[in-house]
Order: sequence, then C-alpha cells, then structure tokens
Amino acid sequence: MSSPDPAIAARKAEVEALLRAARAAAGAVGRAETETKNAVLRTMGEVLWREREAILAANAEDVREAAGRGTPRARLDRLTLTEGRLRSMIEGLEAVAALPDPVGRVAAAWTRPNGLRIEKVHVPFGVIAIIYEARPNVTVDAAALALKAGSAVVLRGSRDALRTNSALVAALQAALEARGFPPSAVTLIKRPEREVVDDLITARGLIDLVIPRGGAGLIRRVVDGARVPVIETGIGNNHLYVDRAADVAMAVRLAVDAKVDRPSVCNAIETLLVHREIAEAFLPEAGRALSGLGVELRACPRALEIFAAHGIPARPATDEDYAEEFLDLILAVRVVDDLDEALQHIARYGTNHSEAIVTDDPEAARRFLTEVDAAAVYHNASTRFTDGGEFGFGAEMGISTQKLHARGPVGLPELTTVRYRIVGHGQIRGPERVGGGERLPV
Amino acid sequence: MSSPDPAIAARKAEVEALLRAARAAAGAVGRAETETKNAVLRTMGEVLWREREAILAANAEDVREAAGRGTPRARLDRLTLTEGRLRSMIEGLEAVAALPDPVGRVAAAWTRPNGLRIEKVHVPFGVIAIIYEARPNVTVDAAALALKAGSAVVLRGSRDALRTNSALVAALQAALEARGFPPSAVTLIKRPEREVVDDLITARGLIDLVIPRGGAGLIRRVVDGARVPVIETGIGNNHLYVDRAADVAMAVRLAVDAKVDRPSVCNAIETLLVHREIAEAFLPEAGRALSGLGVELRACPRALEIFAAHGIPARPATDEDYAEEFLDLILAVRVVDDLDEALQHIARYGTNHSEAIVTDDPEAARRFLTEVDAAAVYHNASTRFTDGGEFGFGAEMGISTQKLHARGPVGLPELTTVRYRIVGHGQIRGPERVGGGERLPV
Repeated sequence: MSSPDPAIAARKAEVEALLRAARAAAGAVGRAETETKNAVLRTMGEVLWREREAILAANAEDVREAAGRGTPRARLDRLTLTEGRLRSMIEGLEAVAALPDPVGRVAAAWTRPNGLRIEKVHVPFGVIAIIYEARPNVTVDAAALALKAGSAVVLRGSRDALRTNSALVAALQAALEARGFPPSAVTLIKRPEREVVDDLITARGLIDLVIPRGGAGLIRRVVDGARVPVIETGIGNNHLYVDRAADVAMAVRLAVDAKVDRPSVCNAIETLLVHREIAEAFLPEAGRALSGLGVELRACPRALEIFAAHGIPARPATDEDYAEEFLDLILAVRVVDDLDEALQHIARYGTNHSEAIVTDDPEAARRFLTEVDAAAVYHNASTRFTDGGEFGFGAEMGISTQKLHARGPVGLPELTTVRYRIVGHGQIRGPERVGGGERLPV
Repeated sequence: MSSPDPAIAARKAEVEALLRAARAAAGAVGRAETETKNAVLRTMGEVLWREREAILAANAEDVREAAGRGTPRARLDRLTLTEGRLRSMIEGLEAVAALPDPVGRVAAAWTRPNGLRIEKVHVPFGVIAIIYEARPNVTVDAAALALKAGSAVVLRGSRDALRTNSALVAALQAALEARGFPPSAVTLIKRPEREVVDDLITARGLIDLVIPRGGAGLIRRVVDGARVPVIETGIGNNHLYVDRAADVAMAVRLAVDAKVDRPSVCNAIETLLVHREIAEAFLPEAGRALSGLGVELRACPRALEIFAAHGIPARPATDEDYAEEFLDLILAVRVVDDLDEALQHIARYGTNHSEAIVTDDPEAARRFLTEVDAAAVYHNASTRFTDGGEFGFGAEMGISTQKLHARGPVGLPELTTVRYRIVGHGQIRGPERVGGGERLPV
C-alpha cells in the first residue's frame, strides 16, 4: 500500500472532528424543550439582523468574485443577498418557531394483553447533513428546520457562497452560544475540496440523514456514493396531460400557470401531453398564450403541424427534450392517442415528482390519480402547488421524489424518526427458567 | 475499453428481463382489490399443500447437498423443511390474508383555503426485492407480505436453498396464474453468480425497495453497494442494563429470558451491563442461573472477580466481545460506574436495535428511554419482545435498525409508500396570465 496523501488525511481528519462535534451537540438539541428551541430561533433572527452589514459585505465579495468568473446572471441573482432577502430569512425563522414541535409526539400507544405498554414516539434523527447549491437562504432555513426537529445540522454549501455562508453560520452559532447551546449544533464545512461531499455521505455512525438540494448532478452524485440514508429531492420533469374530456379554457390556464409562473423551480411542468381528439381545439389557444408569454415550444410532428397551421412558432422535439428538466421558458409538447399513451410517456420520462391531468371524465381522473407513480398527482389543478407552504405544512426542507420515508414536501415531521418505548413490570417472552415453584416446562 | 464478458452480459440481460417482467406485473398487484389478494394468498396455501411432496423432495436434495459440503448443523436445521414447517408457512399465508389491507388507506385529508382537496394515501412501492439467507420460510412470508402490500416481489435466496425456493416459488406462481395474475408478481432470481446481488441493488427504476435479511456481511454488502432505497434489518448487538435501583430477582429473570430463550435471533441480548453498586448482589445470582443454563460468560475484570469469588465459570471479555453479535449461548458482562457509563457503552457498541434497563428509579428509566438511540427501548421488560407478532402487527418483514422510513418491526404499513392526491377545479398558484378581463398584473 502507498502511504496516504497528507492533504487527504488532513481533510478527512478535519471533517471527522467537525462531525464528532456536531454529534456531541445533537444530544443537547434533541433534549431541548420546545420553548427553548423557539427562543434560539428568535435569537438567531436578532443576531442575523444585528450582523447584517457584515453578512451583506461578505455576500458582496462572493458575488463580485463569482461575477469575475463569468457566472451566469441567473446564478448570480440566486447568490445575491439584500436586506430584503435577509429579512425574509428572519421571517422564515419566526415561521419555524411558530410550527408545532414534532419531537416527543406519540404517534401511537397501546397496551398488549401481557400488560406491556408500547408507545411509538417521534424522536430526532441526530445529525442531519444538507448538501446544497448556491442559494444562501438554504443555510438559514435548513438550520432552523433541523434545530426545531431536534437535530444538529451539518451544512455543505457551494464554494460560490462560502463567505456568505460563513457569515450566516457565525451569526447562527453566536445565537446558539448566547442561549447556552454548543455552537457545533450548526456546523458549516468550509474545506474547499470537492471530496468533502464524499466524506459526508459515507460517514456512517456520524451522520444519520443526508439531504441533497440542487441539480441532477449533485443528487446523482449523492445517491450513487451514499452509505448513509438519503432523502432525494427536487428533480421535477413534470407533465400536464390534457385529456380529451378537458375544459379547454381551464387546460390553457393550468398549462400557462404550471409553465410560466416560475419556470426555474422543480414543480413547474416541462412537457404538455395532449389527447389527439382535443389537440385541434386546445393547441392553438395554448400555443398562442404560451408563445405570447415567451415560451419556446418543442413539439412532436402532430403538434408541430397544428402550430404551423396557426402561425405559432415551434421547433421539433427530440427524445432528449422529453427527458430534460428545462427549468426555463421551454416546453415540450406531444400529442398522444389516448390516456394509456400519456401514462406510458409519464412512466418513461417522469421523475415521480408532480403530474397533472385536466379532464371532466371521472374515470380518466381516477385512473390517472391511481396509476401515475409520483409524489403528487393532480386533477384539474396546477402542479405548482407541490410545496410545503401550499400544502399547509409551513416551511419545508425540499420536495422528496423518493418513496422511502418522505414523499413530496419534507416538513418537520419528516425530519424526525420514531422509537418504540416499551414499559413493563418484568415481562419475559419465553418460559420461566429461574426461580422456585413457578418454573414452567421448557 | 475492453469488450464486455459475454457471461456477465448474459447474466445482466437475464436479470433485467426478470425485473422488467416483475415491474410489468406490479401494476396488476397494485390495483387488485383486498378480497382478490386474499384469495390469491389462500390459493397459494392450497397449492403449497398440494405440491408438498415435490417441495419436500427438492428440500431434501438441498439438505443432502449442503450436508455433503460440511454445512454446520444449525444451518442445516434452518434449511430443512418438514410437513410441520410447511404447514406453518401456510398458516402464515392465512395470517397475512387476515391483516387489514394497507393500500388505499387515507393517512390524512384536508381542504386548503383555495379549495384544493389534498389526500395523503398509502400506495404500493411497486417492486420490492428481498435478499436473504438460508431459511426457506422467508420465501413464502416475504411473497405474502409484498403481495398484500400491493407490490411485486423479487426474491434472491441463498444458493443452499435454490431447489427448495424454486419449488416453493413454482407453487406460488401456479396460484397467481390460477387467480389470473401474472406469475412474475413473485419472481425468484436463480442465476448462480454472487454478482446478481449487485445487479439487484443497483437496479434504479426497476426495483423500488431492497430489504436484506441475513447476517452482518450481507447487510453491509447491500448497504455499501445499493443505489436503490434499502431498509436495513436485523443486526442486534443488544444490552440489558441492570441499574443500581433494580429489583434483583426481576433483573435475573429478564437477563435469562433475553439471553437464553432464543439466542440465535436478533432481539436476544449480547452484553449485560451492571451498575457497580448492585454488582455484588446481582452477579452471583445471575451468573449461577445463566451458567446453569449453559451460557458462557465473558466478563470485565470487576465482574470476573465476583464470579470467581462465587465459583462461577467465566473468562475475560475483550473489546471484540463487546462488539460482537454472538447469536449463541455467550454473554459479555461488564460492570459500569453509573448510568452514564452504560449509556456510553451502548452508544459505542450498540446497533440501534433493542436496549433495556431494569430499574425502580423513574429518573434513570426516563433518561434511558430518552437517550438511548435504538428502534426499541425497554424499561423492566425483555428485549425479546421486539417482534411484529409481539407488538401486535401480525407478520413482519424483519426488524429495521435504520432511522429512515421504518424502525423496529416492519409490518404491512411500512411496506407501502404514500402519494398526495390533489383535486381542484382549475386552481392556479400564480397570477392570472390568460383570458379576458380577469387578467391580473404580473
């Protein structure tokens, strides 16, 4: 064996030390009373506001450096903090403080015939790691949700936002200390190496849950390399299927909302599927509206023909278009022969996030809601509602697209696990093997 | 790149074809009514009984061959089927038929202020893979539970049991066909190569959940290699902590039950932790009882001294003894200074399965039940109760030792996932961007 690279050894040692400190802090957070945790969250808001100049200065430096590297404008915008955005973060902390505490909730309790009392109780995970890309508001949101859920949090943001995240976490840690909590309950991993992500996702015994928040590349890397449990989030290649029995005006309205309202988010649609019997009625209207709002249409041959006949600009769709999450004002359009073909298309290209049908036919709606395998399935509503706030959950840690543990918006309850607490008075399962006259045959 | 090995390509192609067939069958199982699924389960029992001679003959051959390879007696016993064991399997099928159907259960339903109706519904996973070691009853139990939970099941048993499993699955498939279901809803992967396990645990998009059932080596291999969601099961390095305020007679009784009742199972204890203030009173009695029942004691120096003073045979414990799941009539014994040292020992060596305290001190019990991070924590009861049947869940698919999705006994509800079904009447999230006078400012 070759001797280990000292730089790698130093990185691993530093990350492990930070994780051990986070693990040690998890106990204090996990045992804290609701009111204590809420007080910490409010103090965090106060310190963030007090330190706003330092935070915004750090952010300005990050933005300047990123701009110098030629970072695209949309990404720069997401990186940029303003007083207004900082105020939103602080409001987010208050919103989390206002949410019910998930820790200690007894999900079920019963007594067995032998007198054993069994309680299924929500308990904290322990240490939750969040690996995320540019937006610095995730730093504060994630820390707040993890803390309220009784867990320590380990944050790994992108290099672009390192100064900003460091300033934010310094403020959060100051608030923890002011309230008598170990600052490592919110730990930022600052090492520059990309491989830090691998250190985190393989830290069995030190990290209890990893949540990646970012693009498909990040999610894939985490899922492929993880040895600790993961909640996958956020890839949404979503469809709106306009059934032959759809109300055309409603379908146009929903298509426009689901595509145009906020194209860069994961609950926007990327492909419109249209039953052939309604294509002539729906596509010209939808095409005009979407195109008029700046949407580039990428259409199958049948849709292309209808668009051309009505002078609506569109280009041919490729197979890759159906597979892509554009996150932009681009929409693939495909005419299908029937509901079955729509279901097959969604099964093939969908990412199990949010899928919608527009129809007045209850049987078509029933089949769609039953057979489409996605976190959220909609009948006559926009996919844009897949969101913790819109569901009424308050804040969320992301949208899970996996089937294990959490599906759809990940709120506070999903950031806890359960434990069975069993209280007896000496019950044994087997026959009595010790003692006097009460000995039973073995 | 070197050209691929044709044997590997053939294996991968065969496994993929089987998984695609299972996936295709999952829809029919997922949509089946409760009564239809129960009828299939009962028919499975009938066919198993009708085919009992062929099944027992296949099993006899597996046992003969395993014996010829020098397989240890305990393992041979677990491999062996008898008419009685076959009858137990059939009773298991009836028990699963009698359980409530988890599919379609609405876990929560609410209406948002905008009129959207949201339902959180339990739905099937799709395809569940079970990778397991020798015991052939898992073949029938796992198939029954997966079917009742609306999923197709892919089974990978050990090579030792291949003939037995093939005969069992042939019977299950005959029952599926007799009831009009695709036989691939229960699929056995028979290829001999060890690498089949890797094919299964990396089959993203074809398998929705993998549950390994077996020893630490198997669990570790699956967790390390998996790219699909996993429920870890069954490693139980469990402790009974005898607090200074314990009732000595109760503590002896619980220690004996938890160790001796069935040492080879995952809810047995492997280490006894004893508060130093009660060691002199407890250890001689416990040591005599355990030793008298054939338990080999491996003790720390303080415990060793007490055992020696009372003529109870024991040998020194090593660090490895504390880390090992003996699954045998062996028990490590350690005297600790206080509850904190016991908690530290459990945090270091425990596997988050089942942990127990014996005490009459409510504060010690409260701390133990709160601070020990395990699926099941006991106060004054034997760890042997961590079991789906003992919890009142009916049959179980194993004991989860992970925190994600399922913890403790994995029953039918844990074998489903959820989906949000949202029904509206044209709701959009953003401002109105199409139509006439109702256009809102953007």
